[in-house]
Amino acid sequence: MNTNVAPNAVAAVSEARQWDRLMELATLGAITGADGAPGVNRQALTALDRQARRLLIGWGAAAGLKASVDVLGNLFLRHEGTEAGLAPVVSGSHMDSQPAGGRFDGIWGVVAALEAVQALREAGVATRRPIEIVAWTNEEGSRFAPGCMGSMAYAGYRPPETWDDVADAEGIRFGDALREHLAEETDIPHRGLGVVEGPRPHAYVEAHIEQGPILEAEGIDIGIVTGIQGSRWFLVELTGASAHAGTAPVSTRRDAVQDMVRAINALNALMADPTDVLRFTVASIEVKPNSSNSVAETVKFTIDFRHPDAAVLRERGDAIEATIKGAVKTCEVKLTERFNADPVTFAPQVTEAVARAAAAQGLSAKRIPSGAFHDAQFMVPLCPSGMIFVPSRDGISHNPAEYSSPEQLARGARVLAQVLAELANS
Amino acid sequence: MNTNVAPNAVAAVSEARQWDRLMELATLGAITGADGAPGVNRQALTALDRQARRLLIGWGAAAGLKASVDVLGNLFLRHEGTEAGLAPVVSGSHMDSQPAGGRFDGIWGVVAALEAVQALREAGVATRRPIEIVAWTNEEGSRFAPGCMGSMAYAGYRPPETWDDVADAEGIRFGDALREHLAEETDIPHRGLGVVEGPRPHAYVEAHIEQGPILEAEGIDIGIVTGIQGSRWFLVELTGASAHAGTAPVSTRRDAVQDMVRAINALNALMADPTDVLRFTVASIEVKPNSSNSVAETVKFTIDFRHPDAAVLRERGDAIEATIKGAVKTCEVKLTERFNADPVTFAPQVTEAVARAAAAQGLSAKRIPSGAFHDAQFMVPLCPSGMIFVPSRDGISHNPAEYSSPEQLARGARVLAQVLAELANS
Repeated sequence: MNTNVAPNAVAAVSEARQWDRLMELATLGAITGADGAPGVNRQALTALDRQARRLLIGWGAAAGLKASVDVLGNLFLRHEGTEAGLAPVVSGSHMDSQPAGGRFDGIWGVVAALEAVQALREAGVATRRPIEIVAWTNEEGSRFAPGCMGSMAYAGYRPPETWDDVADAEGIRFGDALREHLAEETDIPHRGLGVVEGPRPHAYVEAHIEQGPILEAEGIDIGIVTGIQGSRWFLVELTGASAHAGTAPVSTRRDAVQDMVRAINALNALMADPTDVLRFTVASIEVKPNSSNSVAETVKFTIDFRHPDAAVLRERGDAIEATIKGAVKTCEVKLTERFNADPVTFAPQVTEAVARAAAAQGLSAKRIPSGAFHDAQFMVPLCPSGMIFVPSRDGISHNPAEYSSPEQLARGARVLAQVLAELANS
Repeated sequence: MNTNVAPNAVAAVSEARQWDRLMELATLGAITGADGAPGVNRQALTALDRQARRLLIGWGAAAGLKASVDVLGNLFLRHEGTEAGLAPVVSGSHMDSQPAGGRFDGIWGVVAALEAVQALREAGVATRRPIEIVAWTNEEGSRFAPGCMGSMAYAGYRPPETWDDVADAEGIRFGDALREHLAEETDIPHRGLGVVEGPRPHAYVEAHIEQGPILEAEGIDIGIVTGIQGSRWFLVELTGASAHAGTAPVSTRRDAVQDMVRAINALNALMADPTDVLRFTVASIEVKPNSSNSVAETVKFTIDFRHPDAAVLRERGDAIEATIKGAVKTCEVKLTERFNADPVTFAPQVTEAVARAAAAQGLSAKRIPSGAFHDAQFMVPLCPSGMIFVPSRDGISHNPAEYSSPEQLARGARVLAQVLAELANS
């Protein structure tokens, strides 16, 4: 690391510019949550998503960064290095949100990478390696499940056509939404798909809000993320038979709602964890015909199961199907696993760089694991990878009340700038 | 009763014409169910509903019947009597369907009344009293809850503006949908609203498919309906807090899906009935934000509770709120009763007329109660009222597989013709 240049770059990080960009982006898909909290609903591959990307591309162009897009819609802004042919350092996150999401989840990691790189350039800091700012397609998985499609395809974890037939709530196929999206961005140069068609990055760093309460509760500025717990997502489809709610005797029914309740009761027992480390969530339910006086013919519900221990994830996850089949009384059961990400541990090249930068800047820092999954976990097999967390007020995320202050976010961007400068010169 | 004319009218009932009309109406909103069954999705106050009404009005006009519409959209086709000033006999049902409904529920009662009156006229049978064929607005309650709005307003049970703010799944208010609907039917003469603005009917008779298995199982042609069990509909709204499914410890969550499961478990215990007479159904669930990795902030679910015994209906129904509040752990609970119809017993003037007509026509008949509610129950306080059932194949209804044969339906229309002739001459 060139210890002479980084402080200038760190000083060039603008708290106000970064905050203003976040607030401008938050107008795209603005929603109002409980108590008037200003949230965002900006789904992947929508017109709002494209408006947000255009804003980012414009800011990048003004800073001298060149945009490109790959076949999955992943968007890159490139800062050139001084030595030709070196693999890039990649930094970013995602720009899509939850349906009732906040203004910082994902989008801050993209804006912070831009802020960090712009600060390096404004401070006159040249780097040996290129730095690429990335906005991954569909991290949230709320419009099209699963999440992290962009980073999974980039990493070669799944072929890019894997999800073409996944439909959103309105029946639009992912493949069709992606085609329409790319057709709107033909003026942006196309690039090969990640490590499938190009070199491995030199390193990957993702800045993100914590989405949990630890940093705030302990008064810590910077989370040095040690790894990410594993996640498994399932879709459960129960098929019974519709019937008249007034005439069909309860004993004769094949009621999909009642079988869903039996299944969730049994899953709650399977997933019980007195240590409160395990995360088991049923958060999306679709009933058909969903008419109050017609017994439910079908119910689809989702399972989101996470744990930091790969063995627990495997054993309890693999027991889900038998648990449901043992619990239901009358319905046919179909279980589909939609997402399976092993727990990962981040590389010391990145975690130590984050620790050094925080220390050099006089910021408090703590090593913590991530409860949420992130695109970063698919980078782990490719290159030394890691993440930087900043505090989330009350630990709230996936909610309009999500908040991190301009100052907290600026501290994160300053640490990121120093880490990128170090990695891009290594 | 003029025993000379009824047999001619009965003979004039056309099995083919009635069936063809039902099949033509079934093209409006045609859907395909499991195994290719031809069903119907024709919601109240939609363009499809209006197309069906236009067909009916046209058939009525060709038979010499005059159409009129009231402020709730209830549609009437009037056959004049020979003596001025007598109260009419009213017969009909509804034309809206369940979202995954069949081709006979409701609509047959309207088509059968037309067939019966047309047969009387074609046989040259004059009646002292007028006969009015009615198609009640929104009996199903699937687009706008509750059902039976048209008959409830006609009977003065609720003022017509009661449901103006009820919204459908797309947020359209009932009041706005009704206004748009009436604006499309300004060419049809307007009439006063039922007994609120006019006289009590002399009698009310509703023909309907059984929607249960009894008549078919016992090989009976005609159900002499003795009464209707009572119904109470509720909407339960649970409000917790959204949170990130990966980061929020389960112990800290206010998960509306989990509280719904607790509530349904407790309600199942409250509603347990070893005699299998009680009907308890949860068939419609709406989760928000309904994203698999965001803990549910709100859940709305419906309760449909029916019993023939008014005391059971009152006692267990009144215990619902405390049962839910005792079961949930973290959510706020709001309970709204949306519909409350006492059990009713039909009048011997009608039940005996049905019994006589079936006997005169050599048809087997059985006295049975109705498990489903019907518009007829709101007529009970106004005038002698009753219903005629025909068999439903496998007892299936609210399902595209719903079926009654042309012959079974013709038998029902013939009994109805004789009953209407008797009542309209009494």
